[in-house]
Amino acid sequence: MPYFDAAATAPLHPVAREALLAALDEGWADPARLYREGRRARLLLDAAREAAAEAVGCRPDELVFTPSGTYAVHSGISGALAGRRRVGRRLLHSAVEHSSVLHAATRHEAAGGTLSEVPVDRTGRVAAEDVAATLRPDTALVCLQSANHEVGTEQPVEAVADHCREAGVPLLVDAAQSLPWGPVPGGWSLLAASAHKWGGPPGVGLLAVRKGTRFSPQGPQDERESGRVPGFGNLPAVIAAAASLRALRAAAESGPDEAARLRRLVDRIRVRVPELVPDVEVVGDPVRRLPHLVTFSCLYVDGESLLHELDRAGFSVSSGSSCTSSTLTPSHVLRAMGVLSEGNVRISLPYGTPEEAVDRFLTVLPEVVRSVRERLAVPAGPAASAARQAPGSPTAAAPETVTPEAATGSPGGLVLDALGKRCPLPVIELAKVIGEVPVGGTVTVLADDEAARLDIPAWCAMREHEYLGERAAERGAAYMVRRRV
Amino acid sequence: MPYFDAAATAPLHPVAREALLAALDEGWADPARLYREGRRARLLLDAAREAAAEAVGCRPDELVFTPSGTYAVHSGISGALAGRRRVGRRLLHSAVEHSSVLHAATRHEAAGGTLSEVPVDRTGRVAAEDVAATLRPDTALVCLQSANHEVGTEQPVEAVADHCREAGVPLLVDAAQSLPWGPVPGGWSLLAASAHKWGGPPGVGLLAVRKGTRFSPQGPQDERESGRVPGFGNLPAVIAAAASLRALRAAAESGPDEAARLRRLVDRIRVRVPELVPDVEVVGDPVRRLPHLVTFSCLYVDGESLLHELDRAGFSVSSGSSCTSSTLTPSHVLRAMGVLSEGNVRISLPYGTPEEAVDRFLTVLPEVVRSVRERLAVPAGPAASAARQAPGSPTAAAPETVTPEAATGSPGGLVLDALGKRCPLPVIELAKVIGEVPVGGTVTVLADDEAARLDIPAWCAMREHEYLGERAAERGAAYMVRRRV
Repeated sequence: MPYFDAAATAPLHPVAREALLAALDEGWADPARLYREGRRARLLLDAAREAAAEAVGCRPDELVFTPSGTYAVHSGISGALAGRRRVGRRLLHSAVEHSSVLHAATRHEAAGGTLSEVPVDRTGRVAAEDVAATLRPDTALVCLQSANHEVGTEQPVEAVADHCREAGVPLLVDAAQSLPWGPVPGGWSLLAASAHKWGGPPGVGLLAVRKGTRFSPQGPQDERESGRVPGFGNLPAVIAAAASLRALRAAAESGPDEAARLRRLVDRIRVRVPELVPDVEVVGDPVRRLPHLVTFSCLYVDGESLLHELDRAGFSVSSGSSCTSSTLTPSHVLRAMGVLSEGNVRISLPYGTPEEAVDRFLTVLPEVVRSVRERLAVPAGPAASAARQAPGSPTAAAPETVTPEAATGSPGGLVLDALGKRCPLPVIELAKVIGEVPVGGTVTVLADDEAARLDIPAWCAMREHEYLGERAAERGAAYMVRRRV
Repeated sequence: MPYFDAAATAPLHPVAREALLAALDEGWADPARLYREGRRARLLLDAAREAAAEAVGCRPDELVFTPSGTYAVHSGISGALAGRRRVGRRLLHSAVEHSSVLHAATRHEAAGGTLSEVPVDRTGRVAAEDVAATLRPDTALVCLQSANHEVGTEQPVEAVADHCREAGVPLLVDAAQSLPWGPVPGGWSLLAASAHKWGGPPGVGLLAVRKGTRFSPQGPQDERESGRVPGFGNLPAVIAAAASLRALRAAAESGPDEAARLRRLVDRIRVRVPELVPDVEVVGDPVRRLPHLVTFSCLYVDGESLLHELDRAGFSVSSGSSCTSSTLTPSHVLRAMGVLSEGNVRISLPYGTPEEAVDRFLTVLPEVVRSVRERLAVPAGPAASAARQAPGSPTAAAPETVTPEAATGSPGGLVLDALGKRCPLPVIELAKVIGEVPVGGTVTVLADDEAARLDIPAWCAMREHEYLGERAAERGAAYMVRRRV
């Protein structure tokens, strides 16, 4: 049963499992105690810190273990901001950071701080020059991920670190996704990571704070972990985390190149999915990306059905679509990139994923997508044609339309009322009515589903129609499209 | 090799180990995901929460899992204080709370809050009436441990909860030490606990917040654990923690009474140690106490040497003496109780401690204490007599004394200069010079070791001399003693 969601959490690495079992016997005591069990625990903790620091590329006394990657991000940001309070209270981050960074940013803003968000291009990549241009005298901290967790795009950390150093602003790198594959280069000041992303156990994060970085830990403190992480540590898990990270690095240096092998498998997915499934957009940078992660979106498909069908077929993947979890909004990453969000699938291959699993996925996917589209009454065959099909055909019932004046005062053209309809229905209905619109004419879609804001422009780009923009409406928004082909 | 420091951390319970191993296979995925690994993880998490809630005595939706007991205490206090901000900012706690509570209190004070500390008696017990009398209109929260972690004394949680309810003030109970032995009775509002104290794995705490308690989580939030604990959870450890807690409770209900067995072993230590070792003070409530924990202090002994010698003899114990870790001050618990701190030993027996281990400890201890006292030139035999021995005898060299006028302007009597001398030397030297003082006369001890403030009065009480109080001195303090016997 292939599990393709390593970017959420990776299965426990065999080395981590073995180290954890050993540490439950050898490393359970309090490393602050002077008796033999405590001394043994201290030795193991020191060795784990050294191994982790080597893998991160910092000094052992610059690295502390935290209860999670999120904890590392939150405490790293709050500590760095507090350390720079005299300089200013502006936090600069990219638009595609992990939610843990965004939550910390929200908190900072609620406490009176200010935020600057740096946009990304359509591949999800930040331009280092944009960061440089956004740096201001009151910028206290810059946060940038090393690679994106949803689309795999690598960020120009090294160049951004140079700009930050020049401006005297610390850079915190969220390395949760990339650390399994190698150290983060460049002159970053703080780095956060999460062990369960590399096959370590859950319950362990890393926070590195390079010497010379002003840092003032927030919240109550004790004497553990340099005063940065209070509470009894999770030593067996820490030992297992460090052991598995060291094992990954050792394997990368001496053994067959697992990153390259996974990269080839991902390349196969990137190439084959658009060939096998009509109306698919593969997103993220095709080259500067994580080796094991690929994301694509399928037009006229809802993420929840797609995930459900893939799960039934034995594949565990995740999605940035709305309607796939408690949220009704599409992923902020896809939004920031301006790409299609409906029918979104993220595949992240764990270490050792067999080639056959990927091949089987490629065999299964087309039928899964076809069946979901069929249930949504998207015409069979290349779905592209559905958009040009006349309404009233047996497989594409005419959606309810109203005259423009009655609804929006829109200057001529059709109005499609998709209010109350959830992703991907507004786009499917738009595709169905576009055939009624003369080439050069317009259609206005009324929709209150958040995904429409992203998916209607994305559909226009894929279909080569012109997206004219949106206007406020009594409910939701009015999205205007000019038929071009 | 007997490990007698369960109150610091207990060895992993076999049930916890087994559950952890199973959960590494079954419960590693993200319980927020909809695919089968995620659904399975969700089922396991829900079951763990139900089991933990049952053991705590709350509803499952009132309980969240945290990365540690300290985290539970810190977030419980900050969330409860924030929820009551409109009422006031006064935090009331006992003088013998765990350092995690005191650290949170310090933080609260630094942020502009106010503190009230309720004292304890010589057994370490709070009087419920004292709490009631200290409650004020602006009291936002009361913190009280269920039982003390250093001396084992149980607190009157139920009576305090009644007073709090009457006053409309929430009560947070730190149940870290007592939860292994049973639920905390009474109408508490919040409860914190720590899994590694009951043989669960490290990395898991519990925070229960009863419905109707105003609570506003601080710091960045996400959708996990009711918005109270952000970050990817440590599910395998959570499962193991809940399984072991459930197993302990089941064993207590159906099997032989382990608590009663350990209580008998502790009783044996309480009775035998003062018989076997001269000049020992057993501290803590003899009846209303944890079953597995006992603490005593040995006059004329330094904690570090004692721990070291016990470790060499194969016994792992802890100590509240100064000079045993990085701190130079004796435990705040012993200080608040006003009992002797030098030569302090805390014994906390893990589940299943064999009777023979306790007997062997009782065999070893007298020689260990004797050897430490010998090295410190405390006269052999009942050390009590040393205090009455004339200086100049071969085993008790006269300490350096100065005339009173020269040093302190003290009105007559001897002055003993123990400046720069660390615990237990000031007390040993006092014991040596007391023979020079006529009955009814005074001796003033100049000392700058923090332990002297506690140990000189404690020595007076044990020796039936009169402690006259302390005065400020150029360095340290001047402690005045009147010889009575």
